[in-house]
Amino acid sequence: MSSTYGENLRLTIFGQSHSPAIGVTLEGLPAGIPIDPDRLQAFLNRRAPGQSPTATARREADCPQFLSGLREGRTCGAPLTAVIANTDTRSGDYANLLDCPRPGHADFTAQEKFHGFQDPAGGGHFSGRLTAPLCIAGGICLQILERHGVTVAAHIQSIGQVADEALDPVHPDLSRLCDVGPLRVLSSDRGREMEAAILRAKSQGDSLGGVIECVALGLPAGLGDPMFGGMENRIAQVVFGIPAIRGLEFGTGFAAAAMTGSSHNDPFCIEDGSVRTKTNHHGGILGGITSGMPLIFRAAVKPTASIAQVQQSVSLSRGLEQPLEIRGRHDPCIVPRAVPCLEAAAAIAIYDAILEREKGGTSWT
Amino acid sequence: MSSTYGENLRLTIFGQSHSPAIGVTLEGLPAGIPIDPDRLQAFLNRRAPGQSPTATARREADCPQFLSGLREGRTCGAPLTAVIANTDTRSGDYANLLDCPRPGHADFTAQEKFHGFQDPAGGGHFSGRLTAPLCIAGGICLQILERHGVTVAAHIQSIGQVADEALDPVHPDLSRLCDVGPLRVLSSDRGREMEAAILRAKSQGDSLGGVIECVALGLPAGLGDPMFGGMENRIAQVVFGIPAIRGLEFGTGFAAAAMTGSSHNDPFCIEDGSVRTKTNHHGGILGGITSGMPLIFRAAVKPTASIAQVQQSVSLSRGLEQPLEIRGRHDPCIVPRAVPCLEAAAAIAIYDAILEREKGGTSWT
Amino acid sequence: MSSTYGENLRLTIFGQSHSPAIGVTLEGLPAGIPIDPDRLQAFLNRRAPGQSPTATARREADCPQFLSGLREGRTCGAPLTAVIANTDTRSGDYANLLDCPRPGHADFTAQEKFHGFQDPAGGGHFSGRLTAPLCIAGGICLQILERHGVTVAAHIQSIGQVADEALDPVHPDLSRLCDVGPLRVLSSDRGREMEAAILRAKSQGDSLGGVIECVALGLPAGLGDPMFGGMENRIAQVVFGIPAIRGLEFGTGFAAAAMTGSSHNDPFCIEDGSVRTKTNHHGGILGGITSGMPLIFRAAVKPTASIAQVQQSVSLSRGLEQPLEIRGRHDPCIVPRAVPCLEAAAAIAIYDAILEREKGGTSWT
Amino acid sequence: MSSTYGENLRLTIFGQSHSPAIGVTLEGLPAGIPIDPDRLQAFLNRRAPGQSPTATARREADCPQFLSGLREGRTCGAPLTAVIANTDTRSGDYANLLDCPRPGHADFTAQEKFHGFQDPAGGGHFSGRLTAPLCIAGGICLQILERHGVTVAAHIQSIGQVADEALDPVHPDLSRLCDVGPLRVLSSDRGREMEAAILRAKSQGDSLGGVIECVALGLPAGLGDPMFGGMENRIAQVVFGIPAIRGLEFGTGFAAAAMTGSSHNDPFCIEDGSVRTKTNHHGGILGGITSGMPLIFRAAVKPTASIAQVQQSVSLSRGLEQPLEIRGRHDPCIVPRAVPCLEAAAAIAIYDAILEREKGGTSWT
Repeated sequence: MSSTYGENLRLTIFGQSHSPAIGVTLEGLPAGIPIDPDRLQAFLNRRAPGQSPTATARREADCPQFLSGLREGRTCGAPLTAVIANTDTRSGDYANLLDCPRPGHADFTAQEKFHGFQDPAGGGHFSGRLTAPLCIAGGICLQILERHGVTVAAHIQSIGQVADEALDPVHPDLSRLCDVGPLRVLSSDRGREMEAAILRAKSQGDSLGGVIECVALGLPAGLGDPMFGGMENRIAQVVFGIPAIRGLEFGTGFAAAAMTGSSHNDPFCIEDGSVRTKTNHHGGILGGITSGMPLIFRAAVKPTASIAQVQQSVSLSRGLEQPLEIRGRHDPCIVPRAVPCLEAAAAIAIYDAILEREKGGTSWT
Repeated sequence: MSSTYGENLRLTIFGQSHSPAIGVTLEGLPAGIPIDPDRLQAFLNRRAPGQSPTATARREADCPQFLSGLREGRTCGAPLTAVIANTDTRSGDYANLLDCPRPGHADFTAQEKFHGFQDPAGGGHFSGRLTAPLCIAGGICLQILERHGVTVAAHIQSIGQVADEALDPVHPDLSRLCDVGPLRVLSSDRGREMEAAILRAKSQGDSLGGVIECVALGLPAGLGDPMFGGMENRIAQVVFGIPAIRGLEFGTGFAAAAMTGSSHNDPFCIEDGSVRTKTNHHGGILGGITSGMPLIFRAAVKPTASIAQVQQSVSLSRGLEQPLEIRGRHDPCIVPRAVPCLEAAAAIAIYDAILEREKGGTSWT
Repeated sequence: MSSTYGENLRLTIFGQSHSPAIGVTLEGLPAGIPIDPDRLQAFLNRRAPGQSPTATARREADCPQFLSGLREGRTCGAPLTAVIANTDTRSGDYANLLDCPRPGHADFTAQEKFHGFQDPAGGGHFSGRLTAPLCIAGGICLQILERHGVTVAAHIQSIGQVADEALDPVHPDLSRLCDVGPLRVLSSDRGREMEAAILRAKSQGDSLGGVIECVALGLPAGLGDPMFGGMENRIAQVVFGIPAIRGLEFGTGFAAAAMTGSSHNDPFCIEDGSVRTKTNHHGGILGGITSGMPLIFRAAVKPTASIAQVQQSVSLSRGLEQPLEIRGRHDPCIVPRAVPCLEAAAAIAIYDAILEREKGGTSWT
Repeated sequence: MSSTYGENLRLTIFGQSHSPAIGVTLEGLPAGIPIDPDRLQAFLNRRAPGQSPTATARREADCPQFLSGLREGRTCGAPLTAVIANTDTRSGDYANLLDCPRPGHADFTAQEKFHGFQDPAGGGHFSGRLTAPLCIAGGICLQILERHGVTVAAHIQSIGQVADEALDPVHPDLSRLCDVGPLRVLSSDRGREMEAAILRAKSQGDSLGGVIECVALGLPAGLGDPMFGGMENRIAQVVFGIPAIRGLEFGTGFAAAAMTGSSHNDPFCIEDGSVRTKTNHHGGILGGITSGMPLIFRAAVKPTASIAQVQQSVSLSRGLEQPLEIRGRHDPCIVPRAVPCLEAAAAIAIYDAILEREKGGTSWT
């Protein structure tokens, strides 16, 4: 099912950008886990719109209401459902999209798939707004992962032509992460350059993309499964569910393709009595399974498709080309808001793998 | 389940590198589809070992035997199982891997996951040999896709520092594909340079990686699903099941992150009465759903982990670092043999999406 | 996942008896299907509490609110979520159930499973109230099945010792169905006897069970799948999700075990040019697949576990036996309200099988 | 997928009655579990054909060959595949079944589903022979369950009109189980009567059905899940995958429908410090979850559809009724051979639930 992810922790996301509500159901959460609503809200706020001049002007407090699954602040073993009401919607802005699809958006492909019955307002079920319920699920998983000693954090590696400083893949120092406005980076100087680049693109009615790097620390070795259940497969399946993601790489990634085996292979060593690797080209995953080294991946985010410039589109009904001017409120760069989404995606995939690993523990010993 | 893929067409891969056999079961194949065994064999031969000086010396005809699912050369609606016997195995070569893991391989992580009970011979279930049953499944899907008017083809975009010529993403000319020994490329000159680079690495006891580009033509618009069921998610989940894949990108991919929206957005146009796009940065997928433009993705393959040079490893039992010399037969570069694997992966994911699309067709009309 | 059903149409039920809301998400509904809210409400009213002296006094209009999945009264291809607010809850009634489990209820087993973190109020996620979202899903499926020419209807075959008249399995006449208060039966005389039996049990602080027979007409031959995907398997997996169901049989069912093959086998015949069977011991299913004859099954409903009499239970904390008196509002017989639940269950399972059948339709022709 | 069962332990059954082989793949088995091949063979022999005058004359040693998943007699974490070669096949016996379907068999419905492309020989994928791989999977699960302290055993409760003695549902004494020829019963006298009844039916060219009762002892309380993941749902989904099963009931089952709540509810009590129930009408399951009391279910097996008498069928090609005489070798009563199949089904469902339960164990404590 396309809006469902996970075998052990299963999340189902529902809602359209302008439907009465959007939300998520989480099945498979063990009973008895405390959920801290304030920390969850703080996490959701990082993704929420309306924060800064670099983001859309749509203003909504993304406050989840829990319909089920909790009792006295703890999970109770029943499916947990949380919803966010859609209050600030202006559907009129999108009235003509059924006939004249926006370049770079799903308008045309949704029309082909759903034969004109799709909900076009705000991008419907394809809207980036659907990453809010993803972040509810991810925010909950992040709290649980903490109990397992696992930390997940991401930073903006680049926006447009501006690159952040590099994170050491062997000993990543997450304390260096800082926020420049809504931009989470390692170098505040670079963050300010990124901010300037975004505002420059915005002033030109244009948009920018970027690359986000995500790290998970504290993972035990032995997590993940062979073949299609590898950590890469698991993470990829969630990450590509985030709109605008165009590429994903693990460890040294695409750069590994230009290396030799002798330079890419990470020699094993013993550190404080534990098996580690001296370098971390493998990004913490070998054969789909965690090695205990930092798990590292990067995702490419395309420039926001909604731009203020006039673009060429077509009239589907008339079969003619025609110009299109997109009104409405849009982020000139969604990369900053995608950072918590990637953390959420990683947390969901990792926690599902942790639950998977716990199966069978009593059968062979 | 980690060795299973697909919701409508479900394939389950079994076997270890040195178990009596490896194989695949395909559930969900419609009844009545003719399978051409000769064309399947020809496809499998492209992946098979023992073909050239650039590949491993292990020689096995990868001849699938069909145990079930066929009647008079056509699918009969029951699960189709095909197996390949493992005949040329030298398990002794791998005796010490349970204690001394090979850098870049799954030996250590499998040990952590399976507590020493895994089958280490030849990499066990993690072996690249398991791509043979993947190619059986993919080869069958390719034959079915042809009946749907869909063609899937891949070429080596680069090996090490040598790049092939570029494929036009709007009007890709697959007739240009040619084989230089086992290397499928667009430019035979570049193919020969790649071959030379591989042999040079081999002579140094080293290995190379590369990037493979895969294209699917003839896809209808409207294939794939929102969120986690997007074509990217579907393809990623299979592709990362192929050992040594470290990155995956669609359309312009990571390069898109450095572009502006106005240059990355593909303007719609009308061509021969059909909606198309003038450029193809989106790689044939918008919102997870096919646009009818060529579907394009690239995968990064790391350099073969097994190299002839002495490497540093550890003794797990003694907790000490120790050098490791890998014997056995290995490809200095697996990129050539990974080309049909990526075609197989794409074909499987696409056919599963086609089956998905056929559901519900009679409910709303 | 335990609260999820279906491979093609997937429904996820969430909520506890006294949580803010209960609801259901339906994924896989084709886009463009009109949903008639009035007919859906009329179907839900058949299940709703507070209708008659034979039912619980809890009064709630079970009015679903659609959060997503609809556009202008038609499905839009995105997951459809509908919720019912829980308004008339008296959680105090259930305060001591965490320590003193009710006989015949899930209190004790939930405690063992969820380690005391479950939500005990009103039975939590185990409550019969969770059949309301099942009926939302089923009511929608019933509307879609009508477009496929399929009718699903059930009647009370027996309550306690009182049996309804028999339905002809070859030519079932659904026009004979009538309602005696909340009891749907073939014979109104028997219905009145059933009603009297329920009131008699109620006056004694006791409860009754019964058997429900469900029929689906208009099914094409060829629906369902071999082995675990048979119509029996599909229906059973939903039906046993309804609380209090203790048995399920298809066609002649348990009585078939005492027959000979020559009397149980249904001879084939030709009727109006179609293949039919003269008798219908097979209940419309052979090898898990529909034959085109009426699909018939029966489910046994146990007597309501909540009774007014003092019963013996235990104190879990003190490890002592102790008497228990159940307060609160309860049905002396849930069989009448289970009738639409079984229709819903059948409709869901059948529509999922119809969607399954549509896959692959274009591959072999 | 119709030939696949299970979420944690997933088994996929493949093969047709007369295909080169039949087999099963088991995914999700923890690594390190020893499998005793002799005990597995002994279990398979209970199901195998050719044992006695009450069974079919087809003689095949059902010897599984393990293709993968084992290393030195223990599971290695990779999918386990075992196959049985089909050697004693006489396909000619079934040549005309594509046109003239056997009453009570899947010939007609398979034709409708698979459009004539199905494999008719021996019933193809619908054959009772496919219970052999089910028993391989079940036999392995039975060995694992033993390590968990769980015992599963079944007896024939009735064949035709002859009933076995009753098993005490509170303290079932499995040591009373005995074999009268291939019939496992509690009373050897009744077993001999059953045997006589079968031979009588056989001499009349007829067949008999029966009821099998299955018990699982040693289950912990707290196994199974709410709603569709209840133990009943789990068991039902496997059991109805066994050909000829027409009904399934848990605990007191259909008889419960005629009881009152005060007599059906099982009072809780304390026995040796543990919570138990005085009676066991609930059959060890409350709310889908085990109570720790003996888990009890019964399945109705229809009389063998293949009988020697001439029956009425139709010619599908000519659209005419015509008599049919079935040749070939068939059991006059499959109930005895279905006994281990039900044990296998129960063991598979239970072990899948045990694996499910192990998830999440470290998250909340």
